Amino acid sequence: MPAKIAINGYGTIGKRVADAVSLQDDMKVVGVAKTKPNFEAKLAAKKGYSVYASDKESLGKFAKAGFQAAGTLEDLLKEADLVVDCTPEESGYKPMYEKAGVKAVWQGGEEHSLTNLSFNAAANYADCLGARFVRVPSCNTTGLIRTLYPLDAHIGVEKVLAVMVRRAADPGDSKKGPINAIEPELEMPSHHGPDVQSVLPKLNIHTIAVKVSSTLMHLHAVSVDLKEPVDEAQVLDVWKRFPRVAFVSGGEGVKSTAQIMELARDLSRDRSDLYEIAVWKDGVHVVEGKHLYYFQAVHQESDVVPENVDAIRALLQLEKDPRKSMEKTDRTMRIGAVR
Amino acid sequence: MPAKIAINGYGTIGKRVADAVSLQDDMKVVGVAKTKPNFEAKLAAKKGYSVYASDKESLGKFAKAGFQAAGTLEDLLKEADLVVDCTPEESGYKPMYEKAGVKAVWQGGEEHSLTNLSFNAAANYADCLGARFVRVPSCNTTGLIRTLYPLDAHIGVEKVLAVMVRRAADPGDSKKGPINAIEPELEMPSHHGPDVQSVLPKLNIHTIAVKVSSTLMHLHAVSVDLKEPVDEAQVLDVWKRFPRVAFVSGGEGVKSTAQIMELARDLSRDRSDLYEIAVWKDGVHVVEGKHLYYFQAVHQESDVVPENVDAIRALLQLEKDPRKSMEKTDRTMRIGAVR
Amino acid sequence: MPAKIAINGYGTIGKRVADAVSLQDDMKVVGVAKTKPNFEAKLAAKKGYSVYASDKESLGKFAKAGFQAAGTLEDLLKEADLVVDCTPEESGYKPMYEKAGVKAVWQGGEEHSLTNLSFNAAANYADCLGARFVRVPSCNTTGLIRTLYPLDAHIGVEKVLAVMVRRAADPGDSKKGPINAIEPELEMPSHHGPDVQSVLPKLNIHTIAVKVSSTLMHLHAVSVDLKEPVDEAQVLDVWKRFPRVAFVSGGEGVKSTAQIMELARDLSRDRSDLYEIAVWKDGVHVVEGKHLYYFQAVHQESDVVPENVDAIRALLQLEKDPRKSMEKTDRTMRIGAVR
Amino acid sequence: MPAKIAINGYGTIGKRVADAVSLQDDMKVVGVAKTKPNFEAKLAAKKGYSVYASDKESLGKFAKAGFQAAGTLEDLLKEADLVVDCTPEESGYKPMYEKAGVKAVWQGGEEHSLTNLSFNAAANYADCLGARFVRVPSCNTTGLIRTLYPLDAHIGVEKVLAVMVRRAADPGDSKKGPINAIEPELEMPSHHGPDVQSVLPKLNIHTIAVKVSSTLMHLHAVSVDLKEPVDEAQVLDVWKRFPRVAFVSGGEGVKSTAQIMELARDLSRDRSDLYEIAVWKDGVHVVEGKHLYYFQAVHQESDVVPENVDAIRALLQLEKDPRKSMEKTDRTMRIGAVR
Repeated sequence: MPAKIAINGYGTIGKRVADAVSLQDDMKVVGVAKTKPNFEAKLAAKKGYSVYASDKESLGKFAKAGFQAAGTLEDLLKEADLVVDCTPEESGYKPMYEKAGVKAVWQGGEEHSLTNLSFNAAANYADCLGARFVRVPSCNTTGLIRTLYPLDAHIGVEKVLAVMVRRAADPGDSKKGPINAIEPELEMPSHHGPDVQSVLPKLNIHTIAVKVSSTLMHLHAVSVDLKEPVDEAQVLDVWKRFPRVAFVSGGEGVKSTAQIMELARDLSRDRSDLYEIAVWKDGVHVVEGKHLYYFQAVHQESDVVPENVDAIRALLQLEKDPRKSMEKTDRTMRIGAVR
Repeated sequence: MPAKIAINGYGTIGKRVADAVSLQDDMKVVGVAKTKPNFEAKLAAKKGYSVYASDKESLGKFAKAGFQAAGTLEDLLKEADLVVDCTPEESGYKPMYEKAGVKAVWQGGEEHSLTNLSFNAAANYADCLGARFVRVPSCNTTGLIRTLYPLDAHIGVEKVLAVMVRRAADPGDSKKGPINAIEPELEMPSHHGPDVQSVLPKLNIHTIAVKVSSTLMHLHAVSVDLKEPVDEAQVLDVWKRFPRVAFVSGGEGVKSTAQIMELARDLSRDRSDLYEIAVWKDGVHVVEGKHLYYFQAVHQESDVVPENVDAIRALLQLEKDPRKSMEKTDRTMRIGAVR
Repeated sequence: MPAKIAINGYGTIGKRVADAVSLQDDMKVVGVAKTKPNFEAKLAAKKGYSVYASDKESLGKFAKAGFQAAGTLEDLLKEADLVVDCTPEESGYKPMYEKAGVKAVWQGGEEHSLTNLSFNAAANYADCLGARFVRVPSCNTTGLIRTLYPLDAHIGVEKVLAVMVRRAADPGDSKKGPINAIEPELEMPSHHGPDVQSVLPKLNIHTIAVKVSSTLMHLHAVSVDLKEPVDEAQVLDVWKRFPRVAFVSGGEGVKSTAQIMELARDLSRDRSDLYEIAVWKDGVHVVEGKHLYYFQAVHQESDVVPENVDAIRALLQLEKDPRKSMEKTDRTMRIGAVR
Repeated sequence: MPAKIAINGYGTIGKRVADAVSLQDDMKVVGVAKTKPNFEAKLAAKKGYSVYASDKESLGKFAKAGFQAAGTLEDLLKEADLVVDCTPEESGYKPMYEKAGVKAVWQGGEEHSLTNLSFNAAANYADCLGARFVRVPSCNTTGLIRTLYPLDAHIGVEKVLAVMVRRAADPGDSKKGPINAIEPELEMPSHHGPDVQSVLPKLNIHTIAVKVSSTLMHLHAVSVDLKEPVDEAQVLDVWKRFPRVAFVSGGEGVKSTAQIMELARDLSRDRSDLYEIAVWKDGVHVVEGKHLYYFQAVHQESDVVPENVDAIRALLQLEKDPRKSMEKTDRTMRIGAVR
């Protein structure tokens, strides 16, 4: 019988995790909880999800909008083995999950200290097997781990400096700006470095973050001092073993995040998402033997979604072999197509 | 046997028309022609389309890029009953199509005078039955016809003023600006009014166009003097008969084009397209009985795609009943879901 | 002795009004009040303005930041004949002004009902002579009055439909979006029409508002049914009598709001402001004799500034002749240079 | 008698250099040359500059537009001791200048190899004394030299990695995009590193460039390995000796390039320019004693303008002491106000 998964929060991440869970044969969505009966709630119901209100107050709002919710989050948790928390940061549901006796997966808006265990399928699946609570780090952190873990495991990394040029808002958000500005994160190095270390504790990494007027993807310019001299082909060969790294090429017309997202649209995936981290093949340069530079782009709305699926499997021990879990997730989500 | 359709030009419109044709049982794509062997050409081949180079020079470029094209456009036309021309405006292929003896459908980048026949499925399908050459007007013009034809046919339109706030570039385009400006089209009323009249010759319409820093959709603010007094519900009832008009609501959180496109992504259609014209239900206002104001949003990349499918059917007389053609197109493309 | 003017609120409008008042010989700034000791407060002090904290709590913040404020707003009002209120909307200072016995000028963020008297120098200066409280309508409303009052007074206006394509944030604002969206104001016609009528009560006007991703200027597309047949030259001649209307030309390279603002920067005015409403000469079109279309651009940060100066003069009866007040204001602010 | 300066090209840089030269007592503008009689040409004439057409063809265009040009560039060069070339890159005027026997200053659009001498007032004024031809490097390169030269001269620099987040278009440009994308410069390290070395040949520097949807300023995130351990205060003390470095503070509300430009507008300088490089005081961090991180913002339209003035003085030997030249330039342009 498939594991019973609740989704708390049905926004950018929640709706994607729900759909990804639905593609698996070893787990199923027993319900999604939402605070507001907006168009996304309507679409969730149309898709066949049982929609719950987050609490009694919220249940009233649903009723008022003529939307019959299946109950409250508390009711939903009773039906579930595990809840994926996709609520805004610091929503504080942990005590409720503890009381309900469900396992839980949080997103990167939360601090590592909430769970003391952060997850990346390629890097530390085994460490999370059977755990009660785990956190999938943010889109940016997951993006860095996706390319840095392979380099560290297969070549050896001395030191990393990653500059993240961050999109300021998601495409469906029309409130946040800036319209015309570049905004540095003045605490430097930024908190993303320690966040990478929550999964890769020995990695020597500094990060810098800058926010720009874009909604499509984050772009990372990464500078890595390697332990061994390599050439560009060897670096690409390392990454090619990892299907969650995709390759694009400026020479073939993919000059910016706009064309990456256009390419993603052409792949016929739901919501035109790109679960893989996109690396520019012709933007990988090794200088003086050991110094590697590369650019990667991170689809902030979706790259963590397959990690959530694998995290569920690890916590519920649905699959003990990390490789098999990732293969299943990738096959069902058609990850690995862009090479 | 399904009709044989060639697609000349595999960019924003071409690739969508190819996929829409492939969904039909009475027509099929015999090949697509492209000038450049870029990532879109690669994806076309992956999808199973026969990719042709537009001419001999272009064939050389394909060969150089290690891409084996199936031949040139001239070869492709020999295989086809009809070509859908999705090349940039004034590409000048008409003589070649005449020589090859194929029928042709052009896009709105071309002038009405090229074909002296412009097409909209709801408005004039019957007039185009069996024609040799037809033009599907631009996204904006098609968008205006979608809501104005029903009003004129069912209520009666005295006069229209439509102000089009136009997105300046498509999402996959990173070259065109402006980044931070508003640009009026100083010829006023703009050419879009006469373009609407190429399909609805008796409609009294003036249009005004302004270009803004956005990539998502065009937004139209439309002011209509009606012949009969009506209320908002009656207007909505008229449009509800036409599945290619969709309804959104600010009250449900759809405040801007950003949320419309987000909603479209949640519909799981290819490329997150919205073939329908989106009208804000709570933006429809009737003032002093006969004066109607409304806002609509036009997904510039895709609204003309179902019209192209119907145009093919009309020209090749695959179906004589406009209603049946539209129903088939809408069913296969899942049009009509947003209400 | 010059009239003593206090400025309450030293943001976008406040700082400009302060500088404009300082250019006059019949009034002077006795102090500016601010809530926060940020960089703008520092610059105000550098310019020589006496900086007051808005209240006791705020005074504490100033002290904490090592900034010696001259007192609180209450203290400032004791020194003043009139206060220009440039605080955010609904700040609620009216009772304090009444108690202090000062006259006051508010900005367009407030409702007309606060003062029951709204001001435009060209349209109703005489009506406001000696009044205690007056409101200068918003940038958009002032912009519409600037070009519609002359048309109505000199030709006669039957009916107006103005579509306002609004910049979503000011250039110095990096919080507000949207980054990539077009957002209609769904209440249609919008509140701007009645706001124009607060100054021009007999004008038959409907307005429509759309918000876009830009910071530079609002753009208005205006459609006017005139009472008399005229040609474009006659319309331009009417506006030429009003120095607060400027003329630009697409033919000379001013295609968008970006080039208007570039032109304004070349005029060497403070903050590169454009106090005039900019009308595109080659965007003025008369159709069928009585139907006028035109485009104008409104510099949202500064167009109301000269109106504030004139409003001060009217309330304090420093000058009874509207024409003389405007001439003085325009001469000191170098208004009328762009023709 | 003041030195006679011609300005070839009156766009973004040319018009600013003309105005800056006009502020000096040891040089004057004898004329400006333009290719097109647009609004900027009109404004140049209004300002009192003699406007020349760039060649005979262009002279015809001026005549046709009713604009009486003073002659052609060739005529202008006869009147001049030195020409500042502000034309687009690779305009190829060098032979004409050689023939006319004038000295010349080029901008950073040109390669170093055109002159084999690149100029920065603080770094190598003395090396350029009396030279015939010199190049002022680009805005980004000048920006890097402004903060790196002091660090290298006063502390010692081991190694630099600078990531430049570049504005994609100038504020007056409404053609260039992207509207919504982030575009890496795939050649990495970028050409800017060697360009810095054209002035500071011994500096060990790599640069990375990313283009974003903004018009206001470039932002640099700079990582420097220093030769000596220092703290943040010492670093700031070094920069404080250099008036062309300005200081801003996130704590005082200057969070992004938008607020820096707002602050610049409040300084009442022409065109709201900021000639200084702005460094965030609270964005300067020293890690592990010798590793320095900082953010700086570069006003791409104006930071090279004072360097042009000093370059003129060096070439014509109007002043042999670099310090005195810079002091004069800074005083007349009011540089050094933002601290």
